[in-house]
Amino acid sequence: MKRMLLKIAYDGTAYFGWQRQNNFMTVQQKLEESLEKLLGQKTAVRGSSRTDTGVHALAQGAVFSGDFTIPEENFPYALNSFLPRDISCMGARLVDDSFHPQYSVVNKTYRYRIQNDRFRDPMLSRYSAFVPRELDIEKMQSVCGFFLGRHDFSSFCASGSTAKTTVREIYALTVEKNQNIIDVVVKGNGFLYNMVRIIAGTLVDVGLSKIPPQDIPYIIESRDRTKAGKTLAPEGLTLMEIVYDFEKNGEKQ
Amino acid sequence: MKRMLLKIAYDGTAYFGWQRQNNFMTVQQKLEESLEKLLGQKTAVRGSSRTDTGVHALAQGAVFSGDFTIPEENFPYALNSFLPRDISCMGARLVDDSFHPQYSVVNKTYRYRIQNDRFRDPMLSRYSAFVPRELDIEKMQSVCGFFLGRHDFSSFCASGSTAKTTVREIYALTVEKNQNIIDVVVKGNGFLYNMVRIIAGTLVDVGLSKIPPQDIPYIIESRDRTKAGKTLAPEGLTLMEIVYDFEKNGEKQ
Repeated sequence: MKRMLLKIAYDGTAYFGWQRQNNFMTVQQKLEESLEKLLGQKTAVRGSSRTDTGVHALAQGAVFSGDFTIPEENFPYALNSFLPRDISCMGARLVDDSFHPQYSVVNKTYRYRIQNDRFRDPMLSRYSAFVPRELDIEKMQSVCGFFLGRHDFSSFCASGSTAKTTVREIYALTVEKNQNIIDVVVKGNGFLYNMVRIIAGTLVDVGLSKIPPQDIPYIIESRDRTKAGKTLAPEGLTLMEIVYDFEKNGEKQ
Repeated sequence: MKRMLLKIAYDGTAYFGWQRQNNFMTVQQKLEESLEKLLGQKTAVRGSSRTDTGVHALAQGAVFSGDFTIPEENFPYALNSFLPRDISCMGARLVDDSFHPQYSVVNKTYRYRIQNDRFRDPMLSRYSAFVPRELDIEKMQSVCGFFLGRHDFSSFCASGSTAKTTVREIYALTVEKNQNIIDVVVKGNGFLYNMVRIIAGTLVDVGLSKIPPQDIPYIIESRDRTKAGKTLAPEGLTLMEIVYDFEKNGEKQ
């Protein structure tokens, strides 16, 4: 038996998220079906991140075990011939048995993209949220520092989360504008349910002067979801990168 | 009666091109239906460019005449509430009766986008052609000058064209690479059927060293479609800009 980590990119528009469900097509199911066609054996994958309905990924991690002879450097080409056009394998590497798709994660980076313009560009709509009102980028940038470090992010967690702890560490948070596109990029050791979309919604409220910048530390401290901004739409969110510790022998972090 | 020029953007993926057809949904039909809902009257539009099935636009021009009171600055907002998410009105201006959506065109700019990488990125696939082999960008750039000016572009015209003349003038042609995206941008006074997609296919053949750069002038002179490169896929093509002469009284150019 070999164990392989795949890097999977997808346009999430047509899927009910990553995680397998009974009556709805998900990315995980499509990937498992394609692996079964390629390998001729039932194959179960485990993902590094449970992306929601409509959320995209450039670098989801997916691990499976099986008997196969395809070398890792050829694996993406072989798998891509069975995948639909909206899912693509971007890389593959053999890993130890101890490797765990979630516990071996060191950090993840998400991007939340906003189209900030008078009229909606249909070519951006699929991969961004549309905000027609003017946003004060410098104000948005000025509050990024408050989010850095270890915090209880309960204020930025949707109900329905099953996480054992609501403490997470954010390593980087940036807001950048290029022409009519604003990218919120956040790197952390993990994220609560809807956390990035709520952080982006809160930053938009700062940019619209609905939330004063100096309120952000109190919103974080309050651990009260109603104090933060709205959860922005899923189509703006893309899982950009996952860094793993390949040396770690599967201990929980 | 007033006459209005609309700037229309669309993701062409779901449509059988711009031009109205009997049994297939087109952008023109969708736009006319939305205008009818907004204005309460049957409305026929004429486009500046007949984009093909799967081709996109950021700035298609569409002209209609009718009785309406909505001011031009509010017109896009009003119309967008009736348009589907993959079509958007980006601007509107009142024009003289003499304005003609085709004859008043001074120049048009198209972009052909190529994703040049080992593996297909699903988020780029909808708006680009995928070329996994390495392309020599400098070689591609070196032949752009040969296309400039007035030429008989028969070598770059698909059969089935009904154009009266195959002479066109190209004002600018550039090839630029940013990370894994190559953009071929071409500005001209008009384009023959599939002309931009064949020019892009020919540039790719130059980049792959299938066509030597010094052959390009002979390929143009030959007026022989079989000498030029392949017609690249429609999804890579986007109509980017149209410049009009609003003073011209509708004479043919």
